[in-house]
Amino acid sequence: MIYPVIMCGGAGKRLWPVSRKNTPKQYHALIGERTMLQDTIARMGHSQDLKIAPPSFVCAGADEHSVRAQCKDMGIAPHHIILEPVGRNTAPVAAIVTEIIHGQDPDGLVLLLPADHYIADPDAFWRCVEHGIDMASQNHLVTFGIHPTRPETGYGYIRKKAALADMVFGVDAFVEKPDGATAQRYVDSGDYFWNAGIFLFAPQTMLAALKAHAPDILALCQETLEASAHKNGCTYLDKQVFAKCPAQSLDYAVMEKAQKVAVVAPVDMGWDDLGSWAAISDVSPASHGDVLAIDCDSSYLRSDGPLIAGIGLENMIVIATNDAVLIVPKDKAQDVKKIVNLLKDKGRDELL
Amino acid sequence: MIYPVIMCGGAGKRLWPVSRKNTPKQYHALIGERTMLQDTIARMGHSQDLKIAPPSFVCAGADEHSVRAQCKDMGIAPHHIILEPVGRNTAPVAAIVTEIIHGQDPDGLVLLLPADHYIADPDAFWRCVEHGIDMASQNHLVTFGIHPTRPETGYGYIRKKAALADMVFGVDAFVEKPDGATAQRYVDSGDYFWNAGIFLFAPQTMLAALKAHAPDILALCQETLEASAHKNGCTYLDKQVFAKCPAQSLDYAVMEKAQKVAVVAPVDMGWDDLGSWAAISDVSPASHGDVLAIDCDSSYLRSDGPLIAGIGLENMIVIATNDAVLIVPKDKAQDVKKIVNLLKDKGRDELL
Repeated sequence: MIYPVIMCGGAGKRLWPVSRKNTPKQYHALIGERTMLQDTIARMGHSQDLKIAPPSFVCAGADEHSVRAQCKDMGIAPHHIILEPVGRNTAPVAAIVTEIIHGQDPDGLVLLLPADHYIADPDAFWRCVEHGIDMASQNHLVTFGIHPTRPETGYGYIRKKAALADMVFGVDAFVEKPDGATAQRYVDSGDYFWNAGIFLFAPQTMLAALKAHAPDILALCQETLEASAHKNGCTYLDKQVFAKCPAQSLDYAVMEKAQKVAVVAPVDMGWDDLGSWAAISDVSPASHGDVLAIDCDSSYLRSDGPLIAGIGLENMIVIATNDAVLIVPKDKAQDVKKIVNLLKDKGRDELL
Repeated sequence: MIYPVIMCGGAGKRLWPVSRKNTPKQYHALIGERTMLQDTIARMGHSQDLKIAPPSFVCAGADEHSVRAQCKDMGIAPHHIILEPVGRNTAPVAAIVTEIIHGQDPDGLVLLLPADHYIADPDAFWRCVEHGIDMASQNHLVTFGIHPTRPETGYGYIRKKAALADMVFGVDAFVEKPDGATAQRYVDSGDYFWNAGIFLFAPQTMLAALKAHAPDILALCQETLEASAHKNGCTYLDKQVFAKCPAQSLDYAVMEKAQKVAVVAPVDMGWDDLGSWAAISDVSPASHGDVLAIDCDSSYLRSDGPLIAGIGLENMIVIATNDAVLIVPKDKAQDVKKIVNLLKDKGRDELL
């Protein structure tokens, strides 16, 4: 049995002003009619061949209602919901999740994945998971390496080493977001893949790796679980203990250090983390909502509030809500974070 | 005595979404704290040397309250208010105004001017009026020719002929908005001035000219006045008769045809008709209202509603109100009219 665990902790700062502190990216319908979380939930039900449990969720304490409502909309009952009183990045999440599922089904596999990624081809996604199952069952921590279609500087990369099986390689290194020239070299080499932040593993493998490489995180998470309230299929993580966990990514705390790590690659499933409005515009119609565009080209105009009237715009992004309007050229879409930070500095909490 | 008459009939379509059908351009504070109408009223009180009556107003019937409120704000009592049930362009306005003032003070001079022009130097304005007084008293229709500082294609031009007095010339022709090359030739020649749409004349001169060149307009306006209600210093023009007047400009109906026409020129008073957001941006700070701008250059961001967050914008205009947002490069600012026409075609009356 595979237990999908959907991590809903993203902030989506670069998708301001739609993505806000209290209703981040994954709770919005950025592509199509469904929210990104609903798309992810739907994807979990897509496999014909594998035995998949209903998804579990890790989300902010305040989002329990949102997650339950979106599950209800999608007609599923969540397997388990883990509520974080504070965000502590992915390593503590993995430790908590693994402990819980290990207690429920030590022979299952955990499929840990973000709520807010776009995958055009869900069948391809499950075919890749199938490629990883044997490795995960043989005590590998399995990750997924996306075939890089452009020299993207916004993603981390995974460098493969020797093949372990069909479409599965050992991992030589996890590398940070590169500059443009380095990214181009990565793409040209054929040895590098985008790190999709999706993980497949057996609980005992992950527990052993945590014990070896992040014993403090594992111990604090075990302590957290003992101190936490569990009811109605929910685990309400104890704030006092959980807050002591170092906020480290699973890549940094475990994957980079573990010995038996495998990457399924090259994965070709139309993956994008949709981390910026430029990325969203690439997979969306030119306008959304109440928009009039005259002589506009290669632009993305989106309103969830007032009419947007654009004239003669090129490569421009305009996002309007009832209380804020963003205007930015596509090639500066990463800078939206600066606006959010500036609003924070100015105490404009109502707009965060 | 000079009787200033302020024409408030402009629509200001190119200043959408701030300028609307029911609250056009002149009723908004587009530059500084005061509305354009209030700036015009203030300018009328600016002369030290001339005997100036309090201003009269010609405005849409629905705007009586606005005009009275803005006069009250400025601490003046209007001399007279003429309310138009329908707009009929400037020739009928001139005929109505002239008839009324002729009846009140046949020896006065009428100074007819738009409510929605920008004049940086009000002293220079009155010095130019002084230059025109003798000519107007000698039965000339006097207009004002602005020194053209750029090959503007959005204005009409006046071609001078021989000098009649210091800074006063005869008029060879009124010419329509030229194309770019023609405008450049006009500017280079030194014989052409921007037509500011400001007129100074003795009532009997204008009545004679109307009788000679637009007798139908004069007759219909006289008939209108007989049928109209007059009370509380207001003339409520009779709709049935006034609507029969041809909607002609004073330039077209009278000035181009009259014999004794003079132009005070070159007038150098920092004049601009502020007909577009590009023009407004030229005399305004880079932002107005709730705006955050990061790495923006030569742009104008104005909000009367939601926060505007602009990143990396160049030569861009962004105007936000609570129900509409306009984004247009400065060099396309004339095309805002297209948006207004499109909204009209689509029946989006709430946004007009």
